[in-house]
Amino acid sequence: MKLERVVALSGGVGGGRFLDGLARELPSAALTAIVNTGDDFEHLGLYVCPDLDTVMYTLAAVGDELRGWGLAGETFAAMAMLRQYGGPDWFHLGDRDLATHLLRTAELRRGESLSAITTRLCGALGIAVRVLPMTDAPCRTLVETVDEGTLTFQDWLVRRGARPAVRGIRWDARPPPAEGVLEAIGAADLVLIAPSNPYVSIDPILGLDGVRAALAAKPVVAVSPIVHGRAVKGPLATMIPALAGVAPSAAAIARHYGALLRGIVVERGDERQIEGVAVYATDTVMRSRADRQRLARETLAFAAELLG
Amino acid sequence: MKLERVVALSGGVGGGRFLDGLARELPSAALTAIVNTGDDFEHLGLYVCPDLDTVMYTLAAVGDELRGWGLAGETFAAMAMLRQYGGPDWFHLGDRDLATHLLRTAELRRGESLSAITTRLCGALGIAVRVLPMTDAPCRTLVETVDEGTLTFQDWLVRRGARPAVRGIRWDARPPPAEGVLEAIGAADLVLIAPSNPYVSIDPILGLDGVRAALAAKPVVAVSPIVHGRAVKGPLATMIPALAGVAPSAAAIARHYGALLRGIVVERGDERQIEGVAVYATDTVMRSRADRQRLARETLAFAAELLG
Repeated sequence: MKLERVVALSGGVGGGRFLDGLARELPSAALTAIVNTGDDFEHLGLYVCPDLDTVMYTLAAVGDELRGWGLAGETFAAMAMLRQYGGPDWFHLGDRDLATHLLRTAELRRGESLSAITTRLCGALGIAVRVLPMTDAPCRTLVETVDEGTLTFQDWLVRRGARPAVRGIRWDARPPPAEGVLEAIGAADLVLIAPSNPYVSIDPILGLDGVRAALAAKPVVAVSPIVHGRAVKGPLATMIPALAGVAPSAAAIARHYGALLRGIVVERGDERQIEGVAVYATDTVMRSRADRQRLARETLAFAAELLG
Repeated sequence: MKLERVVALSGGVGGGRFLDGLARELPSAALTAIVNTGDDFEHLGLYVCPDLDTVMYTLAAVGDELRGWGLAGETFAAMAMLRQYGGPDWFHLGDRDLATHLLRTAELRRGESLSAITTRLCGALGIAVRVLPMTDAPCRTLVETVDEGTLTFQDWLVRRGARPAVRGIRWDARPPPAEGVLEAIGAADLVLIAPSNPYVSIDPILGLDGVRAALAAKPVVAVSPIVHGRAVKGPLATMIPALAGVAPSAAAIARHYGALLRGIVVERGDERQIEGVAVYATDTVMRSRADRQRLARETLAFAAELLG
């Protein structure tokens, strides 16, 4: 089957890289990225969207590939001065990155929607594929910890270094998706779930009003973010035992998405114990741009075969 | 007479340099600077205080001496990115300078007063003398132009390059001075008016409730910002004919302050036509740090002699 409209649900680093592979493999009009905004937060009066920024910078090929966040060749003069003032320095704000936050925040205050602003920023960065924030409304991911009560996501992840043990994830709201999200899913031949953290990157999207219902009618294929029992990046490997009571594995990811999935792409050797869903095994770790494109190509081919 | 408490009213560049000379000449506990905030404005959601920033950076010896604004060795990576996004780039925001604006804005939004924030920023920069914003309340300087209606000050000065012809200056409010301002004037042995623009840097301070009355009881000595008919920096030389109907001169400055003044320090050769006030002539252009300190020393000696 020829895939003419593909939607991909994505978090930050792994998601951005997979989207970049898809964008290189598909005509730009064929791909819509729906990006988690549950991590968004206000910091120093700036509205910061970590996943959207990582996706934008990655798709524009201006992101820092090694660090996984921010811009390549970034400078941190503002942070150094902020530190001299004794200001909060736990969240790193690069100098060029600040322009993104400043402009976005000013436009939000003027009453523009996050999706309209995202479209404009992407345009200025030369990004051809469509990038939609999952919602234009606030929807904060909250981490319920064992010992420190409820923390906002960035507070838990960055300020506290993901150390406080997790016992639950919830959201402070259940807003409607951004304009275009349900339409994009409705029009899609295929929905992909990027190799992002299911709990804090994909579940926020799935939890929006109407998204699960829209996806139920669509073939959905996920790429596992767990490789040989470990997360490529981030705190997922410790979250799976804490939240699902099982060891981290591709099978745990498949089980988490359950009946939503038609197929899953996993690292070669991670196929065991995955039941009730088609499995495709390959090299899933994206070290280079070529890796991203190959993984995207293989995932699309696997999905096309599933769809007959 | 020994001067134990000196208050200086100041705008930005010339004022900051004169304050720096005073700070080098007087014990730090002896000097209080009261700084114009009529130029303050919101830009990209940031609360920017051009005169306070210039004074702080100059007193901390981290200011850019050649440019007259911002920090020495400043970088402009955020501005470059802002330009790439098509954002507003008419007001230059340096990367380290952004930290000042971000922190100040965040603290104002939390309900802190501008004077408390200024005290903390000055402390972090190692500034020993007391720096007070003239008021903690909004008090915008508005420029009434001949052809373009009323413009806010930064809009007129920076965005429009001070080109629209001026027919009046007014303020959108007449708030009380910041806590400490009237007390500092009341306790002063001497009040100095720095070589700043009388219309847009000093008049905003004089216009605050109670300031003129407090000054009436004090010996006030000004330093002329006009040197041989020209302003050392800024649009003053064109404002004097437009607003006072006379050629720019030290005498026009003396006349502007009128009965407020006990004495005026002018450039050698600029003494003529100054009436009803003691005059001291010297080299007033502050090219080096040594110039600042010498001008401060001579001004203090002139004032001390006047006070007997």
